[in-house]
Amino acid sequence: MAAWGERLAGVRGVLLDISGVLYDGGEGGGAPIAGSVEALARLKRSQLKVRFCTNESQKSREDLVGMLRRLGFDISEGEVTAPAPATCLILKERGLRPHLLIHDGVRSEFDQIDTSNPNCVVIADAGEGFSYQNMNKAFQVLMELENPVLLSLGKGRYYKETSGLMLDVGAYMKALEYACGIEAEVVGKPSPEFFKSALREMGLEAHQAIMIGDDIVGDVSGAQRCGMRALQVRTGKFRPSDEHHPEVKADGYVDNLAEAVDLLLQHADK
Amino acid sequence: MAAWGERLAGVRGVLLDISGVLYDGGEGGGAPIAGSVEALARLKRSQLKVRFCTNESQKSREDLVGMLRRLGFDISEGEVTAPAPATCLILKERGLRPHLLIHDGVRSEFDQIDTSNPNCVVIADAGEGFSYQNMNKAFQVLMELENPVLLSLGKGRYYKETSGLMLDVGAYMKALEYACGIEAEVVGKPSPEFFKSALREMGLEAHQAIMIGDDIVGDVSGAQRCGMRALQVRTGKFRPSDEHHPEVKADGYVDNLAEAVDLLLQHADK
Repeated sequence: MAAWGERLAGVRGVLLDISGVLYDGGEGGGAPIAGSVEALARLKRSQLKVRFCTNESQKSREDLVGMLRRLGFDISEGEVTAPAPATCLILKERGLRPHLLIHDGVRSEFDQIDTSNPNCVVIADAGEGFSYQNMNKAFQVLMELENPVLLSLGKGRYYKETSGLMLDVGAYMKALEYACGIEAEVVGKPSPEFFKSALREMGLEAHQAIMIGDDIVGDVSGAQRCGMRALQVRTGKFRPSDEHHPEVKADGYVDNLAEAVDLLLQHADK
Repeated sequence: MAAWGERLAGVRGVLLDISGVLYDGGEGGGAPIAGSVEALARLKRSQLKVRFCTNESQKSREDLVGMLRRLGFDISEGEVTAPAPATCLILKERGLRPHLLIHDGVRSEFDQIDTSNPNCVVIADAGEGFSYQNMNKAFQVLMELENPVLLSLGKGRYYKETSGLMLDVGAYMKALEYACGIEAEVVGKPSPEFFKSALREMGLEAHQAIMIGDDIVGDVSGAQRCGMRALQVRTGKFRPSDEHHPEVKADGYVDNLAEAVDLLLQHADK
């Protein structure tokens, strides 16, 4: 593999995944990943542009940012690209009235959305809200529609909490796709539209940006397909087999965000 | 399409699906489908062999048969091919110790199975048991295994209860397949082994038997792939679009079991 200097040449901005890179979620709000608070602070003091690109769909951006700030991270709401606000834009543009299968923590993002007489289903990481009853209700709404539309906030397989691996929205999206014989539209990583909106908000071209994430598919492959570079951290949901993924090869693997920032500050934008 | 006489020539035995053909499940045990009690009685008085081939995995065979007898059906336990007993045979043959994600109603079928220190997961139609917590536990067990084995009792998309369509085990099987990056082994319809075991128990060759079911894939396509003929009833989960399925064409469509039995008694084994 080429030297780091070559791999990171010309990088002017960094897109950061949140869960598994900054912190691991879990009981009591979760815990920062060792070194990440300081690494983010160093990154923000540099000349590199920084934006956060998350599939977090259990919490509103306000709650997410509040929680991260309490953990010590330098982050504000305006710096976060998240799937719930992106979904609201789509719903309004297309005149869609959703049945919401979502976590209560993110419901406030949909306050301005008309949910009467639903003509689509929106599914997000509902956590304990993925009861049989709630899944069955979403299924029944879809089966009643002539043209069933299912919007999924991300399609992650699982994520890591302090207590262990947890099923993510992608598993439940697949369940509804199979039961209804339909294909969901994914809003969030790895959808190219989602990465592009984050790039627009940074004011950078894809080749000038690098994604740092713990998900070899959602983060690394998704960003690369958009023309960005991508590093995978060995924290969060990272598994050693990711480094031998049959289809995806990151532009680099680093132990954690701290190592990624060390390398970026040393080699980027040279 | 050929005349019924031609289509039913040489039939010597009938495999009957239960849910959606004999009765629709639901609150209070469900209700017989109009005409089915009498149709089954007539069929059993004929010279045709009769066996029941079900993917029912919420109830033990004992409870299922007891419930059907209370609804007036002439059925006994020894006449039923069901996935739970078939699964127990597989577990014993392969030395598998399952983590069980199943309905309490079928748990007694697994009484003789060692479930300590699980090295596989068995998933059945758990109904309300498909909580996030239970799904996550099954997921975590699979992710801990070096060679994850997932046995699924059927892979139905949904079934019909008196209150409406209900998500079936197949949706949750797909969720675990996706989350773990594995493929489940299906025990039950449409698995060829399952149909073959039912044929063995009737002592018939595939070309001598006909399946009657409400599921265009699980019943009709599954039986046809084994060399049987198959009728779809327009009861249970039948939907008009099934008659224009892109890949599956039943040997006939009938309004209900009563019509199927009329035709069979008139034309079969001639």
